[in-house]
Amino acid sequence: MGLHSNVAALGLETLLAPLQEPMALVEARIQRAIQTDQPHLTEAYQALFSGGKRIRPAVTLLCAGERCATEAPVIALGASLEMLHSATLIHDDIIDRAAVRRGKPTISSTYGADSAILAGDHLFALAAVVVTETRHFEALRVFAETLVTISAGELEQLRRLNCLPSRDDYLRLIHAKTACLFESAALGGALLAGRPTEEVARFARYGRGLGLAFQIADDVLDYVGDADRLGKPTLNDMKRGVLTLPALLLAWDRGLADRTRLPDSLPADELERLIHAVVEGGYVERALELAREYADSAWESVSDLVQGAHADALRALTRFALERVD
Amino acid sequence: MGLHSNVAALGLETLLAPLQEPMALVEARIQRAIQTDQPHLTEAYQALFSGGKRIRPAVTLLCAGERCATEAPVIALGASLEMLHSATLIHDDIIDRAAVRRGKPTISSTYGADSAILAGDHLFALAAVVVTETRHFEALRVFAETLVTISAGELEQLRRLNCLPSRDDYLRLIHAKTACLFESAALGGALLAGRPTEEVARFARYGRGLGLAFQIADDVLDYVGDADRLGKPTLNDMKRGVLTLPALLLAWDRGLADRTRLPDSLPADELERLIHAVVEGGYVERALELAREYADSAWESVSDLVQGAHADALRALTRFALERVD
Repeated sequence: MGLHSNVAALGLETLLAPLQEPMALVEARIQRAIQTDQPHLTEAYQALFSGGKRIRPAVTLLCAGERCATEAPVIALGASLEMLHSATLIHDDIIDRAAVRRGKPTISSTYGADSAILAGDHLFALAAVVVTETRHFEALRVFAETLVTISAGELEQLRRLNCLPSRDDYLRLIHAKTACLFESAALGGALLAGRPTEEVARFARYGRGLGLAFQIADDVLDYVGDADRLGKPTLNDMKRGVLTLPALLLAWDRGLADRTRLPDSLPADELERLIHAVVEGGYVERALELAREYADSAWESVSDLVQGAHADALRALTRFALERVD
Repeated sequence: MGLHSNVAALGLETLLAPLQEPMALVEARIQRAIQTDQPHLTEAYQALFSGGKRIRPAVTLLCAGERCATEAPVIALGASLEMLHSATLIHDDIIDRAAVRRGKPTISSTYGADSAILAGDHLFALAAVVVTETRHFEALRVFAETLVTISAGELEQLRRLNCLPSRDDYLRLIHAKTACLFESAALGGALLAGRPTEEVARFARYGRGLGLAFQIADDVLDYVGDADRLGKPTLNDMKRGVLTLPALLLAWDRGLADRTRLPDSLPADELERLIHAVVEGGYVERALELAREYADSAWESVSDLVQGAHADALRALTRFALERVD
């Protein structure tokens, strides 16, 4: 798996090569934004941003297209969405009591939950400052509504811990958790490029499908991933009562009723048995198949709207989604 | 004190009477914004917004002036700043382990810290959606930068708990914590009303002075306030290692060096002795005198720019600041 993932990472880098110039601009904008007069804080942000593959800004740049990708508003949107994403990670890591993020200690583990609450707020506010540089009200609204959706979704997920969601609930929750930000990244890029409304909607569908595929692939990695590759322990979700798609497919198959109450934590042997049933029942493959369908349909939404290296990259991202590179 | 504070509250209401129509619009905008598809969440927000005197939106409306106070962008800014303020309170209450806010249980005490982190994010995001309705980029930037300042200031305060700040540090910290939001409220109102740059800067000074006066009065109430009136226990700040102005004035007088490290918590008898020294030394009055100076200079910044009932209300707010009504 190590070799395979290195090849994948190399492949992604190669395919995102057409974005080299605008991605460097996004990076510079982020680095400038996280300079503060509090050295510890800046260092903590630098550590956080030293990891991550910048998939979300890449989506923004690709959907803005070759002609617009280096324009200041597009760069600002890409940078602000990556910062928004990172701010949510700071707060997620408090809630998940996570010690490691992108291979580095989390802000909450180093500085405590109180500081991490404020650092997340601060980074979100910095992102909001950067996004005003788009000078595009609809883009600003999309930015703000993305955080509304993410935080509302996470609140709902917290409230439903250990509850069996229906298929619709599951899709809604992973849309809020992950796909919404990809949708905004794609939609925002297309919007700032001045594409017609109908095309903007199709790019939004691309982002949505890509994000759903990413999240499902992440669900699958909760079973089969290796900690080295992702820098986070596996079965993390299962252990804290968040059911991931393979187990859900099994539960739905067994006709478990919607909102069945599950025990707070499974004893090790039951967890072992459940994982065995999920893997042996082919549910991991079925989940991956669903991810593949979302990824394919994402690509089909925009395949006739893009050309050349950008088209290759947009298509490649849908394949990388299935490997959950970030 | 109870009777006195009722009179004060009645007086404030009377003086803010010219704002009745726009304040109702602000209220309606907030209520609409906090409707969610999660009943518990909406209820929690409704409880939070059932308290509070709406001083910040009142400042926005007054600085926008009679002609503009009911315009949609001004209403949106007023509502969004009150929501931003409330979002920071949700996170503050986690950090302060506060059980009560505005006479009601805090969100963190009812739903736990994890949900309160997400609710604060969510309410901040809702505020960011509302502020886009101003369709004024500078106002949007002011909004975002306000949260940058608030959260950076609180981070610094956390890092310096039990450290003796210098006079400059103290002023910078209370600007970040409180005055900055008043400054933005005043500046934003003047900006949206289309006032000339020089006047906008003077309204900003008004808000800043008003906010400094408010925070110093709050510092004083940490010594002399009654829990009934504010819905929060007194000596709250002192007990958690945040030094408030009367004690700081004493410390500076005694020539305690900048950044002197103080014990994590004072034993009850030492705390008692400190309070006695502060009160007997007249430091509470000296702090109030400083608050009065900021309040007076706030009013002087704009006294020749406003007329009639709005002028009366702007002036009255500077007096109410000294009683710390919210």
